[in-house]
Amino acid sequence: MRRPGVLAGGGDHDAIGARQRPAALRKRLRCGVLREAKVGKRKYAIGVDFGTESGRAVLVEVATGKELAAAVYPYQNGVIDETLPESRVRLDHDWALQDPDDYIRTFKRTIPAVLKKTGVDAADVIGVGIDFTACTMLPVKADGTPLCRLKELRKHPHAWVKLWKHHAAQPEADKINATARQMGESWLQRYGGKISSEWFFSKTLQILDEAPKIYAAADRLIEAADWVVWQLTGVETRNSCTAGYKAMWSKQDGFPRDEYFAALDPRLRGVVDEKLSRTIVPIGDKAGEITAEAARWTGLRPGTAVAVANVDAHVSVPAATVTEPGRMVMIMGTSICHMVLGREAREVEGMCGYVEDGIIPGLFGFEAGQSAVGDIFAWFVDEAVPPQYHAAARKQKLDIHALLEKEAARLAPGESGLLALDWWNGNRSVLVDVDLTGMLMGATLATKAPEIYRALIEATAFGTRTIVDALDKNGVPVNELVACGGLPEKNALLMQIYADVTGREIRVTASKQTPALGSAMFGAVAAGAAAGGYDSIFDAAQKMARLKPKVFRPVPSSQAVYDRLYSEYVGLHDYLGRGQNDVMKRLKAIKAEASEGRKKKGK
Amino acid sequence: MRRPGVLAGGGDHDAIGARQRPAALRKRLRCGVLREAKVGKRKYAIGVDFGTESGRAVLVEVATGKELAAAVYPYQNGVIDETLPESRVRLDHDWALQDPDDYIRTFKRTIPAVLKKTGVDAADVIGVGIDFTACTMLPVKADGTPLCRLKELRKHPHAWVKLWKHHAAQPEADKINATARQMGESWLQRYGGKISSEWFFSKTLQILDEAPKIYAAADRLIEAADWVVWQLTGVETRNSCTAGYKAMWSKQDGFPRDEYFAALDPRLRGVVDEKLSRTIVPIGDKAGEITAEAARWTGLRPGTAVAVANVDAHVSVPAATVTEPGRMVMIMGTSICHMVLGREAREVEGMCGYVEDGIIPGLFGFEAGQSAVGDIFAWFVDEAVPPQYHAAARKQKLDIHALLEKEAARLAPGESGLLALDWWNGNRSVLVDVDLTGMLMGATLATKAPEIYRALIEATAFGTRTIVDALDKNGVPVNELVACGGLPEKNALLMQIYADVTGREIRVTASKQTPALGSAMFGAVAAGAAAGGYDSIFDAAQKMARLKPKVFRPVPSSQAVYDRLYSEYVGLHDYLGRGQNDVMKRLKAIKAEASEGRKKKGK
Repeated sequence: MRRPGVLAGGGDHDAIGARQRPAALRKRLRCGVLREAKVGKRKYAIGVDFGTESGRAVLVEVATGKELAAAVYPYQNGVIDETLPESRVRLDHDWALQDPDDYIRTFKRTIPAVLKKTGVDAADVIGVGIDFTACTMLPVKADGTPLCRLKELRKHPHAWVKLWKHHAAQPEADKINATARQMGESWLQRYGGKISSEWFFSKTLQILDEAPKIYAAADRLIEAADWVVWQLTGVETRNSCTAGYKAMWSKQDGFPRDEYFAALDPRLRGVVDEKLSRTIVPIGDKAGEITAEAARWTGLRPGTAVAVANVDAHVSVPAATVTEPGRMVMIMGTSICHMVLGREAREVEGMCGYVEDGIIPGLFGFEAGQSAVGDIFAWFVDEAVPPQYHAAARKQKLDIHALLEKEAARLAPGESGLLALDWWNGNRSVLVDVDLTGMLMGATLATKAPEIYRALIEATAFGTRTIVDALDKNGVPVNELVACGGLPEKNALLMQIYADVTGREIRVTASKQTPALGSAMFGAVAAGAAAGGYDSIFDAAQKMARLKPKVFRPVPSSQAVYDRLYSEYVGLHDYLGRGQNDVMKRLKAIKAEASEGRKKKGK
Repeated sequence: MRRPGVLAGGGDHDAIGARQRPAALRKRLRCGVLREAKVGKRKYAIGVDFGTESGRAVLVEVATGKELAAAVYPYQNGVIDETLPESRVRLDHDWALQDPDDYIRTFKRTIPAVLKKTGVDAADVIGVGIDFTACTMLPVKADGTPLCRLKELRKHPHAWVKLWKHHAAQPEADKINATARQMGESWLQRYGGKISSEWFFSKTLQILDEAPKIYAAADRLIEAADWVVWQLTGVETRNSCTAGYKAMWSKQDGFPRDEYFAALDPRLRGVVDEKLSRTIVPIGDKAGEITAEAARWTGLRPGTAVAVANVDAHVSVPAATVTEPGRMVMIMGTSICHMVLGREAREVEGMCGYVEDGIIPGLFGFEAGQSAVGDIFAWFVDEAVPPQYHAAARKQKLDIHALLEKEAARLAPGESGLLALDWWNGNRSVLVDVDLTGMLMGATLATKAPEIYRALIEATAFGTRTIVDALDKNGVPVNELVACGGLPEKNALLMQIYADVTGREIRVTASKQTPALGSAMFGAVAAGAAAGGYDSIFDAAQKMARLKPKVFRPVPSSQAVYDRLYSEYVGLHDYLGRGQNDVMKRLKAIKAEASEGRKKKGK
């Protein structure tokens, strides 16, 4: 047990995890550590970040956190949401799959590329960490073979990886929630009272409901995050982050009891023991070491330490310098994931969850989210910005977002007269309702695209404020914000609006690839100090993580206007989101009927 | 007294009007009539329609209503809403003026053009009618000279014509309403309980408030409609349509009492006697005859009959074949004006007004309206339709509206999942509130422009249905709809949606220039049967007005879906429009403050 920092929060599980590893592997591990510790040269770690459209490897100097090279592999089969690869099997609306071989190809293409770019000797790479989207899960055989790789199951949609944004399991999520409420399951409150259709057991139950043969054929059901670590190390581990945030597991109580699963479906009674594992390895632990096969894929040395899998958002927290309560990390991209640490368990409405050891060992990690942020701006630019702005952007040699930001920045807060509800993809926190939809109010014949663009930014900032307020009021202080992801880099207006709306100072991570950096940090921790890495993520964060000097500070006059707009936002948020007027849900129901009716008519 | 049909509703006023005319003129009138009656040739009438951007003359065959030629004059100074012509005097937000000389130029350019085009002998043109936007009003000297034509007043904005859509008199309208409520003025109920900022005394009071010198310099304050008739005939008349709908006059009670005006402002006590006239001439009457000067402008014969001025919307009713209760006429263009006739006075919430003899002599004319319809679609196309649709329209050689209509027509009712409130320019009926704004709900990341386009069409249809329902429930039956204006010509989908939403059959006028045809019909009535015209508008409508054969019939399955969507519309309409949540008004107030604040900072 090398790392007391990690042990503090998860010693037992680490011990169990270690016990499961073959003796030969444990031996190789110790040898590797000893050999590498002898070399006085600079050490490196590699972080691999598995995104929605591509995978990315970053090679990082362990002592400084300096990112020396990155390589991206755009998935060959991308997001599979229309037809399955190599067949014409059509997918239903709301489906989103991936090809697990795209993950293997990511290793094969990106790790050799960063080694080659930097000229770093593989012997000096002491650790690898990975992070993934979640819940992204797949059914596999006992040896880890994905069911979709089997010829006889390849044409079956349920045999493939269900991507995080696969939204077809809503009926199952509804059943999970209703049953849990009915049976008074206490774990439900950890998740703000609602389990999402995106999560592990919603997806699992959908497989069972719709494809019982696939369910039966699956020896294991596993997070893609854990699956890729398995492929690298030959060891099946289950990480505490996805187990806690996506699979209703807690360090204290484990998984929900078998009776609960049986109530969902008798065939599900033994799901944990049959297809998952009760052995959950805490974040910050080592999963295993690069196998000979993985060494051939990657060019790394067999025996290189591999960290337990992590989630893209959660792994970013220490990479954003945050290893203590009070500072919220926002991963701002197509959506926003909000994470803050606390010393105690607290029940906060509409959180995605709180998990002990879920982000940083020894602390409770609170997670909330907005299901669409950058996605709304992208939608707006693609579907609602007229040609004259695109032409102006070309003329000024600006990206269309940059042009709209520039125009929107000329307006004073409140000057657009517009107010939006940022529910283009439902509401994740605090309402946890996928059936809510986007709304724009205040339009006049004089309304222009940059005004709407600004109103959409403001709406997402109001969405973040509802989350900050919910946490703050329930004993999870949020004193300061740290942003990372694509948006903060691109849009200074957005950052200022978030500061003004939340009344909090915001700083931005120095790294442009925070998740990959975070994964590399965990890779360095998996290697340990003796091998030239670190003994805890706290140490790693101090040395490897950095923020930019720029601070976005709330402007009091803007804050005053936004306080008024926010109270209007809250009024509509509650009226339309808390059941006073369920018009949005009824519109969705009418939409579904109408769409179904038209299809039946064969129009 | 030649025309009993007209006399039925307005004999007294006609007599008074006639008494005012100089004896010489009356003599010329009789001579003209005698001479023309002798000629056996085909007779013609000319209708001149003064719109917002241009004036249009149409030459019509009296016997058949056949439109032989049209000519349009785009106003040289258009809508004046930024700076005054020939000076750099800037106008405030919400101002909209016109140049009265553009009206004279309309006569000079268009009437000679239609005569020339058709080769019709001016001797065979028996009558001229005009219609105008309303309330469009101006201050003039006793001889009719507009104040803005005087060098010393030309740089003063209040000296110019205030166009119907001049919206800067809202504080005055508020005062007019508050004072009327306070004093228990019974006429207020005729206008649905609210006088608009667009109307005559709102604009009058704004002149007095902001430019008392202009008010003092004005010998007369007059509707532009009546002013152009004055310019043609040398006779100042005041028509019952604008007096009734825009100036709080009624046949039974006349204008509000002097004490009421004095309560608004002591200087306003004598406004009716000093600057208006208590002599109101009913629609369908003759105003006078073409003067020698007007004959030089137009090429018409001096002595040609000129009808009392009318309003573009109201004059369209008989031109749409409607001279009886039960059939509502919708003039559908940038906005919609709804008109229906009734046998009795009825108070209906939020009507623009009901006026005896206001549309058709002997009947009560009920008017309602939607302040933006085509304007919303135009806004959408200009400000919110992305390049790919414009490119597709070019490729398919379609107008962008036609392309969007084609795409939107593929959707089933309700399939967009969207619902809008059609308040981009406030709500005229039934809420009568300019501070309401547009709203769109139901947007998702998959929402496309044609879906929004359809939702906007549906929203305007729901707006029409609230009006139809308000009338129908209050004893003014609406059994069938007749549409005219630009929109019905262009958009068959829109017509079908209106039929489905209102549950009424809709027919469309055969004429594409209904107001001008209506004006020509009134010109033929002004001439009288003895001169080859008609003795009443009832006769003229039977011979000169026609509908297209196509009938838009409600489709029961669509009606059923729209009934559900309409009840959602009503829910939001009432919540946001009837004071439960005045968020729209507060957003407007914040917007005004923010805009003001930014200007002060000189940004």
